[in-house]
Order: sequence, then structure tokens, then C-alpha cells
Amino acid sequence: PTTAPVSPRYDSTDERSRNMIREGFWTEVFRLNGSVTPLVAGRLLGFTAFGAIIYALFEAFHLKNGLATAHYEYIGAVLALLLVLRTNAGYDRWWEARKIWGGIVNQSRNLAQIGLIYGPTNPSWREDYTRWVAAFSATCHHSLRGEHKFDEIQGMCEIVGTAETRRLSQADHMPLYAIHRVADLLKQAVDSGEMDRFYFLQAESERAKLIDHIGGCERILKTPLASAFSIKIRRFLFLYLMFLPIAIVDAAGVATPLIVFLVAYPLLALDQIGVELENPFSKSRLNHLPLNQISETIRGNLMASLEPLPPIIPHNAVP
Amino acid sequence: PTTAPVSPRYDSTDERSRNMIREGFWTEVFRLNGSVTPLVAGRLLGFTAFGAIIYALFEAFHLKNGLATAHYEYIGAVLALLLVLRTNAGYDRWWEARKIWGGIVNQSRNLAQIGLIYGPTNPSWREDYTRWVAAFSATCHHSLRGEHKFDEIQGMCEIVGTAETRRLSQADHMPLYAIHRVADLLKQAVDSGEMDRFYFLQAESERAKLIDHIGGCERILKTPLASAFSIKIRRFLFLYLMFLPIAIVDAAGVATPLIVFLVAYPLLALDQIGVELENPFSKSRLNHLPLNQISETIRGNLMASLEPLPPIIPHNAVP
Amino acid sequence: PTTAPVSPRYDSTDERSRNMIREGFWTEVFRLNGSVTPLVAGRLLGFTAFGAIIYALFEAFHLKNGLATAHYEYIGAVLALLLVLRTNAGYDRWWEARKIWGGIVNQSRNLAQIGLIYGPTNPSWREDYTRWVAAFSATCHHSLRGEHKFDEIQGMCEIVGTAETRRLSQADHMPLYAIHRVADLLKQAVDSGEMDRFYFLQAESERAKLIDHIGGCERILKTPLASAFSIKIRRFLFLYLMFLPIAIVDAAGVATPLIVFLVAYPLLALDQIGVELENPFSKSRLNHLPLNQISETIRGNLMASLEPLPPIIPHNAVP
Amino acid sequence: PTTAPVSPRYDSTDERSRNMIREGFWTEVFRLNGSVTPLVAGRLLGFTAFGAIIYALFEAFHLKNGLATAHYEYIGAVLALLLVLRTNAGYDRWWEARKIWGGIVNQSRNLAQIGLIYGPTNPSWREDYTRWVAAFSATCHHSLRGEHKFDEIQGMCEIVGTAETRRLSQADHMPLYAIHRVADLLKQAVDSGEMDRFYFLQAESERAKLIDHIGGCERILKTPLASAFSIKIRRFLFLYLMFLPIAIVDAAGVATPLIVFLVAYPLLALDQIGVELENPFSKSRLNHLPLNQISETIRGNLMASLEPLPPIIPHNAVP
Amino acid sequence: PTTAPVSPRYDSTDERSRNMIREGFWTEVFRLNGSVTPLVAGRLLGFTAFGAIIYALFEAFHLKNGLATAHYEYIGAVLALLLVLRTNAGYDRWWEARKIWGGIVNQSRNLAQIGLIYGPTNPSWREDYTRWVAAFSATCHHSLRGEHKFDEIQGMCEIVGTAETRRLSQADHMPLYAIHRVADLLKQAVDSGEMDRFYFLQAESERAKLIDHIGGCERILKTPLASAFSIKIRRFLFLYLMFLPIAIVDAAGVATPLIVFLVAYPLLALDQIGVELENPFSKSRLNHLPLNQISETIRGNLMASLEPLPPIIPHNAVP
Repeated sequence: PTTAPVSPRYDSTDERSRNMIREGFWTEVFRLNGSVTPLVAGRLLGFTAFGAIIYALFEAFHLKNGLATAHYEYIGAVLALLLVLRTNAGYDRWWEARKIWGGIVNQSRNLAQIGLIYGPTNPSWREDYTRWVAAFSATCHHSLRGEHKFDEIQGMCEIVGTAETRRLSQADHMPLYAIHRVADLLKQAVDSGEMDRFYFLQAESERAKLIDHIGGCERILKTPLASAFSIKIRRFLFLYLMFLPIAIVDAAGVATPLIVFLVAYPLLALDQIGVELENPFSKSRLNHLPLNQISETIRGNLMASLEPLPPIIPHNAVP
Repeated sequence: PTTAPVSPRYDSTDERSRNMIREGFWTEVFRLNGSVTPLVAGRLLGFTAFGAIIYALFEAFHLKNGLATAHYEYIGAVLALLLVLRTNAGYDRWWEARKIWGGIVNQSRNLAQIGLIYGPTNPSWREDYTRWVAAFSATCHHSLRGEHKFDEIQGMCEIVGTAETRRLSQADHMPLYAIHRVADLLKQAVDSGEMDRFYFLQAESERAKLIDHIGGCERILKTPLASAFSIKIRRFLFLYLMFLPIAIVDAAGVATPLIVFLVAYPLLALDQIGVELENPFSKSRLNHLPLNQISETIRGNLMASLEPLPPIIPHNAVP
Repeated sequence: PTTAPVSPRYDSTDERSRNMIREGFWTEVFRLNGSVTPLVAGRLLGFTAFGAIIYALFEAFHLKNGLATAHYEYIGAVLALLLVLRTNAGYDRWWEARKIWGGIVNQSRNLAQIGLIYGPTNPSWREDYTRWVAAFSATCHHSLRGEHKFDEIQGMCEIVGTAETRRLSQADHMPLYAIHRVADLLKQAVDSGEMDRFYFLQAESERAKLIDHIGGCERILKTPLASAFSIKIRRFLFLYLMFLPIAIVDAAGVATPLIVFLVAYPLLALDQIGVELENPFSKSRLNHLPLNQISETIRGNLMASLEPLPPIIPHNAVP
Repeated sequence: PTTAPVSPRYDSTDERSRNMIREGFWTEVFRLNGSVTPLVAGRLLGFTAFGAIIYALFEAFHLKNGLATAHYEYIGAVLALLLVLRTNAGYDRWWEARKIWGGIVNQSRNLAQIGLIYGPTNPSWREDYTRWVAAFSATCHHSLRGEHKFDEIQGMCEIVGTAETRRLSQADHMPLYAIHRVADLLKQAVDSGEMDRFYFLQAESERAKLIDHIGGCERILKTPLASAFSIKIRRFLFLYLMFLPIAIVDAAGVATPLIVFLVAYPLLALDQIGVELENPFSKSRLNHLPLNQISETIRGNLMASLEPLPPIIPHNAVP
Repeated sequence: PTTAPVSPRYDSTDERSRNMIREGFWTEVFRLNGSVTPLVAGRLLGFTAFGAIIYALFEAFHLKNGLATAHYEYIGAVLALLLVLRTNAGYDRWWEARKIWGGIVNQSRNLAQIGLIYGPTNPSWREDYTRWVAAFSATCHHSLRGEHKFDEIQGMCEIVGTAETRRLSQADHMPLYAIHRVADLLKQAVDSGEMDRFYFLQAESERAKLIDHIGGCERILKTPLASAFSIKIRRFLFLYLMFLPIAIVDAAGVATPLIVFLVAYPLLALDQIGVELENPFSKSRLNHLPLNQISETIRGNLMASLEPLPPIIPHNAVP
């Protein structure tokens, strides 16, 4: 038999992603799950209520403010443009983080194949090597979610054993510890003459990329959007929404709160989406990346490739 | 004779693409084929009918809502900006996928040339090698379309034979299986002394890029646009189009449904185009990439290069 | 004597590009040559005439449509945004194609220098090598313009001789044939011991980039902008321009056709510019890249570097 | 015991960044710290006061200017678009600088691991090597902040000792001096036969990237945004805000200064944010990168990795 | 003594750039130097005068054109969007050119360090090598500015001596000549056994990047923005500004020329800035890059690194 399917097939995309069937238009319109609406509901009601109060005051005292609203709209346009740009910047960060994790998948697969195909045939080296390559992505996942204590990372025991998991939990930097182990194993293979130096060169260049990848994730994690940029937007948003009912009450009358609601909803939601996209790793964010699942898939792929392939059957062999 | 043209010439661009003659302006205006219009027709009629009902109600009961529409337009502008940005993001994904497949073409050609020019002269090694390099892109094509069963991938039999196709259908990850085969063949060539280690270095670096490419495609396949981002747009779109007839009925009168139609059409179409561009691999999408055709062309190119070139005829030879 | 100037100096930018003197503002305003205006004149007149007819009808029957034009403008804004984005996407493709050809220049120069400086001193090898490196860019140029027949590519005779040109015209893929020749020559140099393997590594990595470059050009050539995206824009444009005179005739009166003209001109022109930029290689496009000239310059540069440099004269030598 | 935690754990993200808890909406709205508001307060009050004076003049002399404000808004829109684009360009520079420093982290870690794992076992070489790799990022930090004098850089004494710190303060280019030291140490390791040439290749390619990184930072530091671009925006902003009260006084009446304030605030703030983002290194900027902290963390990481790892405990060892 | 400061310290940023102190808001507002205003003054006055004439005609003959200006504004918005996009594209080119020159700095430094640290100890080789690496950037600078004659490039005499400068002035391509010299020197070092082949690999890969850099600059120099794109914008701009006074004269009355001025100024200035940014190398452009200064700094850095560093003083040495 060929390689036994240890994990669910990585490329067996399930029915939904197979054709990437989007739920229909109407389902998406009414779905609350995965939406930021609950997170902004408070603010939204607050501004709407304020709009109602303004209307009541103007009505009660028969006020007229005679404000020209044209320039007010212009301010709103600047604000919307800023929000859209920030959402875009947030999406770019999120996609960059996804790309880096894609790189972790690629380099882990590649590093494993190089070691297993071109490396020593000694089974214990092969197993150690594969496990430590797989451990790298698992430590990245834990490290980026701020999980360092032994009980937070005990899933690692299955990969590298309890003793090494305990060491990991005490290490200065878990992913660097894991990749150091991989380097030790490579050095051992080269020094013992079981791995050709030319093969080593390829492995080492993939290993270096893994260090770049974890560094890239840490950069995204530790660097929020420039804060002056971010604070300013929220202050403009607040000022804009406060003055909005005053600006429109003359013309809109009883519809003032409704219009405030319709204007405030997209603006507050966009603002919140920008925040949600800022940290692609934290489980407390709506759109966090499935780091857990990705690193488990890497492990499945790698363990499945431990067994060497049987000899090629020529294409023109009689079946 | 020089290389026999096994497949249709890859670079023989047909008449249409030769000058990339676009069909004329008017043809494109009226073409339904390849358009998203049929996909959004239902929603479009729904919103238009709703506009007609609103008009009828206001007319029947002589209602006036006195709504100022200025801020309403502003909401529409935010919405349009969001839709355009999402369409752009979708197009970027689609183009990235195309670039990655361009890379699969490049690296397959290059890997084949390196093996065939710098590798062993043994014909059976050469044939196996070429076939497995060609098999890689074919497995990518099947894997990205979720085709794993033997009868779904039986076109592979022509490339690697029935027995290996059966193994592929049982492998944990088809493209990794194929590229593993290529690595085995390279190792065999180096270990037998028939391929210089310096030549091997070049081949291996191209092979590593192929693993990156399939990883890149899987990243695009498995990561839809951030869903909070996506859902939000559809909810705004719905709210906007529902309130639109109410907002304009005073001013537009009997033209209300027409204006709703003219406004809703581009917005709904843009929304749908964004969805269509999201998965560049699925055949159920309008603009899916011609993976089938690309991987067949690679195969044609590769098989055509199996035969070694005859010696160079000097440029100043008497003809 | 030092290297004889075989071709016009590549870096001798002529008077115009030396300071990249743009023709003045007014010249550019009135220049027809190189403009898309003639290409859209028909459509433009059509829509203008339609505007005049609408005006005449409304005038003749004293019609009033009472349409609010505010939302109509909003549709126009969405349309304009889409057109601008597509023009930008088209420009990006065009610039990407230019960059790839820049890469062909760089890698050709570099490959030639490596071969000529670090390679065999045998004059016939040197000449063959230089000619085949130069031939690569020439075959790219022909291949991207769809020229394959012997008489279409007979300019190649000067570079590689008639016999090889005939073989090229029969090859499955001309640029791959040419780069295969380069690889053969490199292998010959290494196998004969005349080129150190470390030198070879450098040459091979440049050669691999050339294969990437031709693949990149083919990707741009064979992949038009996603067609759903493209068709939709033209349909919106048509609908928008058809309803435009109806929407404005009440307010604009006799100026209706003029305004239709002023609105339709930039929109139709932008649409056409997007089409023109789509294929950067075809001579039938206004802004096609000067492939011919670039590949001739490469050849000039390369042939000029055939002759080895004389020994360095120390900087402090007495003149 | 495993590696002793010399520095605070690099990946122990503190409570705040662990979930990247943003301060709440309202906190950010009212926070002054880290905001550009104080920097633009003067200009803002100036323009508002000017608005009040204009209103007073028009009121006093019963003036009417009868200006159509529609085109005025259009100018404002162009201006806002320019400001938003410049802010975006500024943010891109800032993020590019952050990426380069991320690269300095990655390459420093990698260079240290390569030297410590694959290099000589001689403890003094190891210590010197690690210290000079750590010194590189520290010199970058000082150099980019313009600190060259001995007392400005005396923190370096802890890393490389007083004598070498003094030499650094006299060097032509501090980071080049430090990286030269690293190269000397590598050469010494190779020449003494303690480091395999294949290991050296990897180290050297990381070292080359560090030279690229400091060059990249210097490029950002020394190249302000194209000045014609920058000056023009400020002149337009000035003209726009000067004419604004005149344009709106007829319609806005007593609200003139308020509207001027509301329009001027986001525009002036955006302009200032663009300036703040321009130099990501200077401590006098609001959003400068924490170079100090990053280079100290690198040092902590590196010193912690000086001690070799204990042998691997197999994953299935009895605990 | 350590390295003598031959040139002004490269990293000694002067007072202004140290904190990148921008001149204040008001200074920039009123500064003419470095501004495009003088370049567009003629056109600006022309269009303003035309506005005055239109007003005078309408006034004299009591004309009313009854034009609705709403759609006219819309055309203006399309135009402004196009201009902003072109300015952005121009800025991107300018920044790309700056990045490439940053690369020339990086690779020159790196190539020099590799040669001087890992290369032959023979002083004359070291001097020749350093001089020719420094000569490369100097020839790039002259070549990109179109300076080829002996007296235009006589500053090179200080670097490579008069005899070689004369040869350069006759070479087919100056930067290729210089980099050829560097390759000759490297080959000589390898062939004489004084430079290890592994060291050579690093040097050669940096050398190849320098060839890419000069190619990148030539690409930017020789490829103006797609001309159909560029011409079209100027024609739209002209049409727009011609019809502007006619469109607004009814509403704006005597303020017509003022509004034309305020609208035309940013549009004409943006158009001109786009042109200025197009060629980042020419001294006749406002924002040309300081190629002269950059290449002199490279030379200073390189010459300063000729002297080998004294042995490391251990960090814990007694001072």
C-alpha cells in the first residue's frame, strides 16, 4: 500500500469549498453570525437616540438653524474615504498574514521533503526531523496567540514528547528553539556524511525562510496601524456624527433619527471592521486566521510523507 | 528533422489573440454569454418591483415623505466605493492566481530543460522524468478543482500510466506525490553520478518553486475574502436598495421603478462580479482560469523537448 | 583600440529623450497622432446625434419628464470610477510587460558577460554563444507578435544563419528552442572543463530568469482582463449614455447634445484607452512596446562585447 | 537547565498586545496623547478666527457676494483626495521602514543561528560573533537617529566594549563598520577550517541582506516626499481655507466660523499626519518606530542563543 | 588609527535631515523655489483671461445660456481623478528610480566589502577593484544624464585615471564597460587562487544585481508614460477649462474669472507635477534625484573601506 492517509486529506476540499459555494445573497444579508453588527450596536443606538433628542428639542422650541448642509456632506466624504482606506489597509495586513502562513506551509513541506528524500535513511533521524519541522508551525501558532505555559501548549506533547514540550515552555522564544533543533539535525546529517552538502544548501535556504516567516508574523502582531492615523479617524467620526442631526434637522424633520441611523451604521461598522482586521492572529477577532487548523494540516502532510514512496511503475507497464 | 510538433504550437497564437482583436464595442454591449446579468436578474427585478409598489402606495394614499435625499446619495457613494474596492480585491486575487499558474508553466519548462540537457542520457530516465514533471501541473489542476477519484483523474493515465494514476488517487496530496517523484528521480541521477551536483542545485531550486506555487493556489482557494467584510457589504446593499424608492418617490414620481432599476443594476452586478472572481479555479465561475488547457500545453511543450536538438549549424555556413 | 561601436550607442539617448523634453502643453492638446480620438469618433457622434434627436422630440411634442437627475449623476460616478480603475489596471499590465522586457535586456547582457568573461576562450564558442543569447530576445519579439513563418522571421538569419532560422520556424516554441541552444553551449563549456562550475551556476541562474520572462510575457498576452468585468463596463456605459439625454433634456434644453458630447467623450475615450493598453505587444495597438528596437539594441550591445577588453591602465599612470 | 531567560521573553506579548485589545471607542475619541491635534491647533484657530472676521465684515456692511459654491466644493474634493493620497504614501513609507526593521530582526537571528550552530566551537569566537551581530542593529538605530558621538552611543559599550565603541564613534559609517567585523569573523572561521564553505555561503547571503536593510532605511531617511508634490498641497490648502468663509458666508451666516472649523480640522490634521509619517525614525515624530526596543530585543534573543541546546529527548521517551 | 574619514561622513545626517525638520507650514505655503507655479503661470493666466472675456461678452450682450452645471462638475471630477492617478503613477516611477539607486548604493558597498575582505591582499588589486566598483555608479550617473563626451565625464579621471576615462568615453555602453572591468578583476582573483570560489559566488551575485539596476534605470528613462494616456488628459483638461467659464457665467457673474483661476490652478499644477516626476534623472526637472551626490558618497564610502580594520578588541578588555 502507498502512503496511509493519517490525517484528513489536505487537498480534499469539502463540499462547500469545492466550488466555494457562497451562501446565497439573501442568507448573507440576514446572517448575524460573523458580523460586526452586535459590536457596534451600542454606539449606533446612542447616536440614533441623540438624533431623536435633537429633533425633539428643535420641535419643542420651534428652532431653525439655517445651516447649509453642502459642506457638511463634503466632510462626510473625506471621512468615508479615510475609513475605506483604513479598511483596505487592514485587509492588506490580514492578507499579508495569510500569505506568510501560506509560506510556512510551503517551506515546511519543502524542508520535510528535502530531509526525507535527500537526507539520512536512519529512521530515528527521519522521525525526529519530521517532528521538529512540524513542531515549528505549531510553536508559531502558540507563540502568536500568546500561549507559553505548559498547559497552554500541551498539544505539542504529541509532536515532540512531554520533555521537549516542557523545555519549549521555558525557552526564550519557542519558534527559534524549534528551528534551532532542525538546524542541529541538519548539521548532524551533514557532519556524519549522510547528507551531501549540495542537498544541505537547499534545506538551509528553506530553513532561513521559516525564520523570516515567523519574524513577519511578529511584525504584524506587534505593530498596530500608526496610532495618530487611527485615533484621528475615530475623533472625526465622533464629531461628524454629533453634528449630523443638527445639520439635517431643518430639512429632514421627523426622519432625522432614521437618517442618522442609516449614515452612522456603515461608518461605525467600517470603523469596527478596520479594528477586527488589525490582529489576524487573535481568536477574539472575528476574522482571525485558522492557525490551529493550518498547523495541524502541515503536521498531517508531513507525517504522511515519512514513509518512502514505492518504486515508480513505468507509464507503459501492463496493468 | 528537428523537433516534431506533437501538440498544437504553444506560441502559435490563433487569429483572435494574435492581435487580441476585441470584439467590437457594440457586440460586447449586447453579449449575454459570459455576463453576470442572468445571475442577478432575480434580485434586480425584485428591487424594481418593490420600487413600483412603493410608488403605487404613495400615489394611492397621496403620501409625501419630505425626505432630504442628499445624505442618502452620500450613503450610496460609500457603498459604491466599497463595491468597487471589493471588485478590485477580487480581480487582484484572480490575477495573482493567474501569475502563480504562469509560474507553474515557467518552472515546469525550466525543470524539464535542466533535467533533459544536464541530466542522464538514459532514455527511460528522461522519459520518466519528463512525464512526472508534466504530471505535476496536471495534478495541480485536478486537486484545485477537488477531483481526486480515479475516474475524475483518469486523464493522468496517458501521462504516468494506470498504476501510478491509481496510486495518485490514493495519495494524501496529489501534487506533493508527483513532485516527490521528481525529487526521487533527481536524487537517483545525482547518486548514480550522471548529474553533476551543480546542475542538481539548479533543478532543486526550480522544484522548490513548484511547491511554493501549489501552496499559493491552495491559499487562494481556501481563503475567501474576510467574511465580515463581505457580509457587511451585502447588508448595506440591501438596506440601501430597500430605502431607495422611499427616498426618491417624492421627486421621481412614476419614474421611481426605472431609477431603482438603473441604480440597482450596476450595484448588484458589481457585487456578483466580486463573488465570481473570488474562486479563480472553479469551473462553476464565469471567469475561471483555463487550468485544463494550461496543463495540457505544458505537457505538449515538455514532450516535444524530449528529443535532443541536432548540432548547431554555424551562422555563416553555406546554406 | 577599444570596443568598436557596432550599433548606435545604446546609452546615447537622443536629443529628445536626453532631457525627456515633452512637447509643450498646447502641442499635446491638439495632436491627433497617437490619440484614440479617431477610434471613438463614430460612437461619440452616434450618442451626440441621439441626444439631438431626443431634444428634438421633447421640443416637438412639448414633453416634460420631470426626472430627478441627482441619482443619475451618482450612476455616472460609479461608471467613471470603474473606467478609471480599468484604465489603471490596463496601465499596470502595460508597465508589467515593460518591466519584463527590461528583465530580458538585463539578463541577456548579464548572460553574455558571464559567458564571455568566465567562459571558454575559443572564438567560435564565443561567437555562437553570443549569437544565441541575442537570438533569444529576437525570438521573443517574433513569438509575441505571432510571427512564425520563415519569411516573417527572416531577420533572424543575420543572427543565427539561414539554416537555424529555418529550424526555428519549425520549432514547437521558438524562444525555448533558442534558450535550449544556450544551455547546450553552457553544458559543452562545463563538460570540456573550460568553464568552472561556479561560473556555470551564475550563468544558469540568469538563463532560468529568461525562461521566466518569456513565460511572463505569454501570460500577459494570453490573459485578457477578466471578461465579465470588461463586458459589464461597456453595458453600463451604453445604458448610461442612452438615458443621459432623457435625464437632462428638461434642464439643458438646446444644450443637450453638447453636454452629451462633453460627457461621452472622456468616458468613451477612457474605455478605448483601456482596450489599447490591454495588449502591449501587438503592433495594431497605439501604445505597443518597441520590441523590435529593444531586441536590436540587445543584439548591438552583445556583439559589441564580443571583443575582450584591453588590460586596465592604472589610474595613476602617466598619461 | 535549558537556555536561561536573559532578557524579557521576546514572544511573551504583554497583556495588551496579547489580544491586541484596542482601547475602547470612546477612549480613543477623547485621547489627546499621541494625537496631532495640539500640533495643528494654532493654524486651526487662525482659520476659524479669519472665518469669524469675514462674517463680521459681511454682517457689518450688509455684503452679499452671490458666489456659487458648487465649484468651490469640487476644488475641496480634489484637495481632500490629494491629502488622502499623501497620507497613504506616508503610511506606505512608514510601513516599509517597519518591514525593513523586521528584516533586520530576521537576518540578525538567522545570522546568529548559522554562526552558532554551524560555526567554530571556540567560545571566544562565538561570543565575539554574537556580540557583533547584535551590534549591527544597535548601530543602525543610532545611525538613523543621527547619534554618532561617543556619549550618544555609549550604550554600545555593553555590547562590544569601550574600546570598540570609541572606534565606532570615529568610523566613517557605523553599521558598515559593524558588519565588516562580522565578515572578518566569518572569514577567520572559514580560513581556519572550522566552518564549512557551504555553511559560509548561507551566512554570507544573510549578511548581504543586512547591508541592503541599512541601505533601505537610509533611502527612506534621506529622501523626503518629492518636494514639489508636498509644497503644492500646502499652498492649495491655504488658498482653499482662505476663500472658504467668503464662499459660504452668504448661506451659512453666523455658522460660518463653525463650518470653517469643521472643514479645516480634518484637512489640517491630515496634512500634519502626512508630515508625521514622513520620518519613521526620528524620536521627534509621533509615530516613530521603537528602534531602541527592537534592537534591544534582538540583543536579548541573540545572547540567549549563545548556549548550545541540550541533546533532543525523543518524543516517545518515558517522562 | 582607525579608518580615516576621507569623505564627509555618509551617515552624519546634517542638522536639517537629522530630525527631518520640515520648514513650517507657512514657509512652505509661500515658498516659490522648487514649485511648479512659475511653469504653469502662463497657461493659468490665459484661462483666467479667457474667463474674463467670456464674462464681459455675456455682460455686454446680456446673454443667458441656461446651462445646467451639474453634469459639468461631474466631468471635472473624472478629470481630477485622472490627474490624481497620473500624479500617483508619476510619483511611483520617481520612487522606483530612487529605490533602484538605493540598490546601487547597497550593491556597491557589498561588492566592495566582499572583494576587500575575502579577496586578494595584493594592494594594487584592492585599489583597482575598489576604484572600478566606485566607477560603476559614476558611469550610471553620467549615462542617465546623457553625458558621454570626455569633457562631460572628466570627473571620472580622479577615479580611474585619464586613460581609462578616455576609453569610457568611447565605449558602447559606459556602465557595462565598468562592470566588465570588475568581472575581469574577480576572474583574475579566482584564477590566481587568491579568492575562494565560494567567496566569488557571493561577489558575482551582487555584480549581477548592479547590471539589473542600471537596466531598471534605463527602462524608466526610456519609457515615458503611455502616450495615449498622457495626451488624452491634456485634451480633456483643455476642453474642460475652455467650457468652464461658459458653464458658470450665469451663476457666478463677475466672480467668473476668480473661480476659473481657483479651479484651473490645481488642475494645471497637478498636470505639470506629473510631467516633472516623469524623468527622475534629468537635471532640468524640479525633483530630479541627486545622482551626483549619491555616487560621490558611494565613492567616499568605498575608498574609506580600503584600509583593513585593526584586530577586534574584546568587549571585556580593560580600557
